[in-house]
Amino acid sequence: MRSATRVFRSNVARQFSTTTRLQAPSGLKINSGRLWESLHETCEWGAAHRYGENPRETGMARLSLTDDDAHVRRWFATEVQKLGCVLSVDRMGNMFARQARRLNSSAPMIAMGSHLDTQPRGGRYDGILGVIAALEVLRTMRENGFQTKYDVGVVNWTNEEGARFPKSMCSSGVWAGAIPIKKAWDLRDIHDPTVTLRSELERHGYLGEIDCSSDPASGFPLGAHFELHIEQGPILEQTGRSIGIVQGAQGYRWLTINVLGKDAHTGTTPFSARQDPVLAASRMIATSHDIAQRHDALASTGIIKVPSNASTNTVASEVTFTLDIRHPKDSVVHAVQEECLQSFATIASQDGRGVSFNWTLDTDSPAVKFDQNCVASIQTAADQLVGPDRSMLMTSGAGHDSVYTSKHCPTAMIFVPCRDGVSHHPTEYCSPEDCALGTQALLEAVVHYDRFHAGGQ
Amino acid sequence: MRSATRVFRSNVARQFSTTTRLQAPSGLKINSGRLWESLHETCEWGAAHRYGENPRETGMARLSLTDDDAHVRRWFATEVQKLGCVLSVDRMGNMFARQARRLNSSAPMIAMGSHLDTQPRGGRYDGILGVIAALEVLRTMRENGFQTKYDVGVVNWTNEEGARFPKSMCSSGVWAGAIPIKKAWDLRDIHDPTVTLRSELERHGYLGEIDCSSDPASGFPLGAHFELHIEQGPILEQTGRSIGIVQGAQGYRWLTINVLGKDAHTGTTPFSARQDPVLAASRMIATSHDIAQRHDALASTGIIKVPSNASTNTVASEVTFTLDIRHPKDSVVHAVQEECLQSFATIASQDGRGVSFNWTLDTDSPAVKFDQNCVASIQTAADQLVGPDRSMLMTSGAGHDSVYTSKHCPTAMIFVPCRDGVSHHPTEYCSPEDCALGTQALLEAVVHYDRFHAGGQ
Repeated sequence: MRSATRVFRSNVARQFSTTTRLQAPSGLKINSGRLWESLHETCEWGAAHRYGENPRETGMARLSLTDDDAHVRRWFATEVQKLGCVLSVDRMGNMFARQARRLNSSAPMIAMGSHLDTQPRGGRYDGILGVIAALEVLRTMRENGFQTKYDVGVVNWTNEEGARFPKSMCSSGVWAGAIPIKKAWDLRDIHDPTVTLRSELERHGYLGEIDCSSDPASGFPLGAHFELHIEQGPILEQTGRSIGIVQGAQGYRWLTINVLGKDAHTGTTPFSARQDPVLAASRMIATSHDIAQRHDALASTGIIKVPSNASTNTVASEVTFTLDIRHPKDSVVHAVQEECLQSFATIASQDGRGVSFNWTLDTDSPAVKFDQNCVASIQTAADQLVGPDRSMLMTSGAGHDSVYTSKHCPTAMIFVPCRDGVSHHPTEYCSPEDCALGTQALLEAVVHYDRFHAGGQ
Repeated sequence: MRSATRVFRSNVARQFSTTTRLQAPSGLKINSGRLWESLHETCEWGAAHRYGENPRETGMARLSLTDDDAHVRRWFATEVQKLGCVLSVDRMGNMFARQARRLNSSAPMIAMGSHLDTQPRGGRYDGILGVIAALEVLRTMRENGFQTKYDVGVVNWTNEEGARFPKSMCSSGVWAGAIPIKKAWDLRDIHDPTVTLRSELERHGYLGEIDCSSDPASGFPLGAHFELHIEQGPILEQTGRSIGIVQGAQGYRWLTINVLGKDAHTGTTPFSARQDPVLAASRMIATSHDIAQRHDALASTGIIKVPSNASTNTVASEVTFTLDIRHPKDSVVHAVQEECLQSFATIASQDGRGVSFNWTLDTDSPAVKFDQNCVASIQTAADQLVGPDRSMLMTSGAGHDSVYTSKHCPTAMIFVPCRDGVSHHPTEYCSPEDCALGTQALLEAVVHYDRFHAGGQ
C-alpha cells in the first residue's frame, strides 16, 4: 500500500503544483488547548472502560441515540448556535450547523463532518475528533473575524458506527441515497429489539423536519465535505508522519463462508471417515491469508463459529467464518475473492470424506476516489504545516461518512496518527499535538478550498 | 488401528484356544422381537428430533435425571423386580439389579451394564441398547429356567453422557473411586445452575442408601462387568463385521489452547502489524491434524471460539480451541501432544507480530486394557455366533462406564455396528439383527464367563 501511495504522491504533487504550492496559509491559528478541553469535556458523556489513573484515561461507550449521545448533541447544538450558526436537523437526526460568510451565497456550505457516536468499547478520538476539530475551526474563524467567501459549517452524522443500530455509516448512507430511509429507521437496537432507530430519534427530539438527502429542494446539499479522522492504523506512526492526505478508500467485500461437515465422535471416527468442517475452515483461513499476501491485499477472518452444542469430543457439524477482503483496486479484491473460492473448493475435497461449503456476499463496497480539488487543498495545507516528508498520500482502509458524501459532493479526508494504530478500543489515543495539527490542517484545507475551488471555481 | 488389532487377534486366539474354543453355547436364544419392542417402547420417554415418518424415526433427548429419565428408571425397576431381581440403588442413583442363581453365592454378581441417559441430540442405541439387552438376557434365562452358577445382574449407571451434569461416565467414576462423590453431587445442570445432580437425585427418589463404591462392606462390588454398546464408529460396518471384541480403550488427552492476539481494524492494519489469533489458531489446527496423521493417531478440534464481541472487520483479540488427542498407546498420545505444542510455538512466532498462547490439560485418560478372561469369553461367543471373519478385536475410541469398572472388576465390551458410524445424533441406528446378535453374544459371554472364570476359577 505504501509504495503505491508514493507513486501517486509525485503525480498529484505535479498536477496541482501550479495552483496550490504558491498559496499562503490563512494566518489563523487554532486554539489547541480549547480543542483538547472540549474534546475531553464532552467525553464525560459516555466515558467507560477505565485503563489508567488519569480521569481521562478511559474509553467511550456513547452509542448512537443513547442518553449520552443526546447530551453531547444538545451541547453541540448550543455551541454552534453561540457561533451564530443556523442548525438544521434532518429526518435521520444528522445535524448541519451553517455559518454565513462574506458572499452570503446560497451555494451549499463547505462542510467539515464526522460523528459523535462511538463503539461500545471505543475510544475518545474516532469520529469525535472530527466534529470537535470542525467546531474549533469555526470558533477560530469567528474570534478572528476571518471571512471565507462561502458559508462553512459542521455536520454530525448519526449512527456512523452502526454499533447499536447495525448499519455502519448509516445516516450519511441515507443522505447519499444509498440506504433507504425506511430501512434505516427500522434498524433495531441489537440488545433491545423493541427499540428502533426511529423511536430513539423521536424520543430525543432528533427526528428533524428536512429530508435526509443532498437534494437542494428538500434536503441539505453540501458544497464539499472535509473529514479529519484518526488513521486507525499504524502507517503514519511507523513512518514518522503527522498528516495523511486521504485520496480515497479501499474497496472491500465481506463474505460469510459456511462449511458443512458431519458431526462424529472424535474417538471412534478415523480421519478417513470424517467430514470435518473445523479442519477445512482452518485450512481455508490460512490459505486466504497467503493468497491476499501474494496480491499485496488484505484478507481477514474476524469471526469463526461452531454450533453452540459443539463439544471437545465431537467433530462439529458445521462452521461459519467471515472473510473481509480489501485492496485499493476493485479488480484485486475480485481476484483475491476468486482465488480464495477456488482454493476453498480444493480444500473442501481434501481430508477424509471432504466437506461442502457455501458462501454469501454480505457487503460489496467498491473502491472510492476522493475529489482531486479537495485532496489538493489538503495537500497544500500539509505542505505548509509539516512539509512533504511528514505527510503522505494514503488510501483509507476503513469506511467513513466521507465515502458516502463523496458520491454527492467533493470530498476528502485528513488522517492523523493514533498510538500503535489502535482504534475501536478504550486505549485509542491521539496526542494533543497531532489533534491540533490535524485541526489546523482542516482549517487550512477549508480556507484553500474556499479560495480556489468552491462555488464552481 | 485396524492393522494393530489384527496382530492382537491371532495372539489372543492362540492364548485362549484350549479353554474357550471347545465350549458349547448356552442353547438359549434371546427373543429379538421383545428386545426391539422394549428398546423402542422405552424410547417414548425422551423421544425427540424426528427425522423420518415412522413413529420410531426420532432421536432422543433423555438427559440424566430429567422426568423422562426418572420414568424409564421406574420402568426398569418394575421389570427387573418382575424377574425376581433384588434392586439396590447407591448414593449416585446407580441401579443394580441382581438375580440369585444356582450356588446362591455371596460372591459379587456378574454384571451387564450400561446407561439409559442420552445426549440432548442423541440416538436410541448409545447406552440404551446395553441396558435393554442385559434385561433381555435375564428374561431369556428366567423363562428358560437357565441357571448360571453365580448371581448375574444388570447395572444402569447414572449420567454417563455428562450432557446435563458435565462429567462423563460420572457415576461409574464415583463407584471406581476416581471421582469424589461431593464433586459429582455438586455438578450443576448446564442450563439451570440452581439445580444440582444431588438435588435431582433427591427429587426423583434416587439418592440411594448404599455407598457408591466397589467396597464389599458398604458399596456394591461387581464380579465382572460386560457392556454391549454400539461401536460409534464406522470400522465394523466398513469391514463387514458384526461383533467387535473390545480389549481396551484408547488413551486420550483433552487440551484447551488459548491464543492471544490483539484486536485491530482489518481495513487499516497491515499484516505486518497484526497479532492475529484466528490465523494462528487455524494454522495450529491444520498442523495438529498432520502431526496426528503421521503417528497414526487422532487429533481433533471440536470447539473453536472467538469473543462474543468479535466482528467481521476486527482482528479478534483471542481464540480458544480444544484439542483431543487419542491413540491406543499412551506414549504416542504424549508424543503427539509434545510435537503439537512445539509446532504451535513456531506458528505463534510467525505472521505479523506473532501471538502468544497458553494451554491447559483438561482431561488425561490413559489407555485401558480390559480383562483377558472377559475378552476371551466374548471371543468365544463371537466365534460361536459369527465366526472369526465376522468379528474382530478392537480398541474403544470413546470412553465408557466399562473403562471405570475395569479398575475394580474384570471387564470387557462387545461392539455392534451402527449405520455410517453415526452416534450422538438423532439418526444413530443399529439394525434389529445387529441388536439381537449383540445381545446373544452378551448372553453367551456371560454364560461362558460364569462357567470358566467366575468365582475365582
